[in-house]
Amino acid sequence: MARLVMKFGGTSVADIDRIRNVARHVKREVDAGHEVAVVVSAMSGTTNQLVAWCREASRLHDAREYDAVVATGEQVTAGLLAIVLQDMGVNARSWQGWQLPVLTSSAHGGARILDINGAELIKRFKERDREVAVIAGFQGVYKETNRLTTLGRGGSDTSAVAVAAAIGAQRCDIYTDVDGVYTTDPRVVPQARRLDKIAYEEMLELASLGAKVMQVRSVELGMVHNVRIFVRSSFEKPEDIDPHAEPSGTLICDEGEIVEQQVVTGIAFSKDEAQISIRRVSDKPGVAAAIFGPLADSNINVDMIVQNVSADGSTTDLTFTVPSADYERARITIEKAKASIGYERLDTATDVAKVSVIGIGMRSHAGVAAQAFGALAKNKINIRAITTSEIKFSVLIDAVQTDLAVRTLHSLYGLDKT
Amino acid sequence: MARLVMKFGGTSVADIDRIRNVARHVKREVDAGHEVAVVVSAMSGTTNQLVAWCREASRLHDAREYDAVVATGEQVTAGLLAIVLQDMGVNARSWQGWQLPVLTSSAHGGARILDINGAELIKRFKERDREVAVIAGFQGVYKETNRLTTLGRGGSDTSAVAVAAAIGAQRCDIYTDVDGVYTTDPRVVPQARRLDKIAYEEMLELASLGAKVMQVRSVELGMVHNVRIFVRSSFEKPEDIDPHAEPSGTLICDEGEIVEQQVVTGIAFSKDEAQISIRRVSDKPGVAAAIFGPLADSNINVDMIVQNVSADGSTTDLTFTVPSADYERARITIEKAKASIGYERLDTATDVAKVSVIGIGMRSHAGVAAQAFGALAKNKINIRAITTSEIKFSVLIDAVQTDLAVRTLHSLYGLDKT
Repeated sequence: MARLVMKFGGTSVADIDRIRNVARHVKREVDAGHEVAVVVSAMSGTTNQLVAWCREASRLHDAREYDAVVATGEQVTAGLLAIVLQDMGVNARSWQGWQLPVLTSSAHGGARILDINGAELIKRFKERDREVAVIAGFQGVYKETNRLTTLGRGGSDTSAVAVAAAIGAQRCDIYTDVDGVYTTDPRVVPQARRLDKIAYEEMLELASLGAKVMQVRSVELGMVHNVRIFVRSSFEKPEDIDPHAEPSGTLICDEGEIVEQQVVTGIAFSKDEAQISIRRVSDKPGVAAAIFGPLADSNINVDMIVQNVSADGSTTDLTFTVPSADYERARITIEKAKASIGYERLDTATDVAKVSVIGIGMRSHAGVAAQAFGALAKNKINIRAITTSEIKFSVLIDAVQTDLAVRTLHSLYGLDKT
Repeated sequence: MARLVMKFGGTSVADIDRIRNVARHVKREVDAGHEVAVVVSAMSGTTNQLVAWCREASRLHDAREYDAVVATGEQVTAGLLAIVLQDMGVNARSWQGWQLPVLTSSAHGGARILDINGAELIKRFKERDREVAVIAGFQGVYKETNRLTTLGRGGSDTSAVAVAAAIGAQRCDIYTDVDGVYTTDPRVVPQARRLDKIAYEEMLELASLGAKVMQVRSVELGMVHNVRIFVRSSFEKPEDIDPHAEPSGTLICDEGEIVEQQVVTGIAFSKDEAQISIRRVSDKPGVAAAIFGPLADSNINVDMIVQNVSADGSTTDLTFTVPSADYERARITIEKAKASIGYERLDTATDVAKVSVIGIGMRSHAGVAAQAFGALAKNKINIRAITTSEIKFSVLIDAVQTDLAVRTLHSLYGLDKT
């Protein structure tokens, strides 16, 4: 007997037939003797329709009303799944965010979960013959005003991990349209293989780099509360899964649980990058603030920042990257701030890509990056900039060379399928 | 300055453009200095979709889950209308049933409102510059379990009247697709005219007889709490209404408020009736129970019941009517119970109609029914059965003569337009 959280996204619950399929997954775990809480998203398309209505109602809509409208999507799915489960003879009931309650901050539209009361659910597992809790994801309630909040896009992952923490679940299964986390994008490197396990920190880096498997915040929450998150496929037929066998997917867990830690776990890349280099900026206190303050004010997400030690003691070059979509706004922002920053000129490039190598093993292994630089040079890939962190390093290269670089590094670190 | 409740049904809020139109109606009253609470239904079609999903999920769905799913429709409308109002510069916020809260009985799917806390709304009228309360109709919460309940179809009318009672509103405006209550159906009698006022009791009779203007329960509630209900058209353009002039529509109110009470207020009719006469049933205690018990068990709504005093002291004839749709089931039910009832034979007719004459004035005026019998006889309309109550009498006639009978009585009692 284990206690499990199962999370299903919008495409998995898009219509009653698919909800029935989800119910069979749930029934499998219940029949295997587990205590189960399910977290569901809105039926796919629903949230978009609700958001569209809010936008049509007003371009500057009240975030509190937006939340009240949008949160209904998950409520519908939770009720319907409870009905289908009951129809299959599985004891179940739905829970809306305010009913548990899922207490959140007041940041409507992007609230953070503060607390979930898991006691009632645990009591019901015991007293009501393992009654399945079907919980509307993505939402909570702000205690002071008693109004509904939503957690922002992808928030159902966060709901699921938070519920798992609240009820002390042995595992939080995220059913998704990929069957796990891969060493890199299999569309670029056919040799990419699925990882059995990945450490929270590594997954955080991957998620931050745009791997769409999990929302960054949900991984953070999992790390803080040590919730074992299991990414698995929602396409597997419930009948084909042996509930007593080890399921296939990727476990996101504490590094201590990963016995044979690789030095490098995965390669991530992003082609939608633009680079802005500020030449001969004066090397004095406050300059970084003068540059990045206005960018933050314009809501531009700066990614890599590279500043080298000044050679002449008075000026230096500073390079940063932004998403391509923000490039124009970023350039104009920096040009407008020229007087307050003080620099000679801007060199920019919009056809650049960032390739990142991630692995907790880097902490204890020297020379991991050096190997990469050598291999890239051998393939005539020019490195424009480098940043490093404790468990990751990234290189900025010409976008056309992305695939070659990723394949080179994937093979270099022994990640290719055997 | 007055305090008003305004209620809008599903077709009035079917899309954002129509919600914007509703908002203009609301703004008109706010601008006129009134304190306003709005009660809204789900966008038309939404409830049907939600109900269809529940049915697809299971033919025997849990009423608690059904309520959780279906209640979302009104929540969406309430949020959207609040957004549109704010966009027009009107201070507004939405309220879901559990937020006010609207406390109801536990009868999921058909709950009764037990209590609404109006104090918070009144406080907000005062403290927040007449903040408009936009309330999701049709729903409440059962306190003990903290689960959502719905009031059954048409329940938004009941929500509106209950809110009006809770906040002590001077009037509860029901915006609907008719512009008031008529003396009879204008499609049958072109001379039918709109009533300025109608007493609760009269409206209750009309509603019970199938006038679709208002839900019976909402009129009952209005009568108990003395809420003045005003039926008016949702098609009038907000711009065309002078907020300081007397609005056009029909006021449902206490009879004391109707200065010039007519003897007869309206004529109602129903063509979908079937008649079952039980011949030579033994005239002894318990027979009525033997007949109507099985019908009630089969969920058949019996309408008119006519039993005359026995002529021979041992047997009598008993006639009752049921909706045409239930005729076959009713006949079979009575045939099956023949042994326990004890009767000679059944005479039935499926082509009958009931015509009813309603008026509080009948209480104090003798001979009102006698006039009708004379007029009907003069027009060669045969009366199959008669029932009477304090403020109403009904005659059962052949269905083909319905229109003639209604026109005859409408003119007889001076209801024709002048």
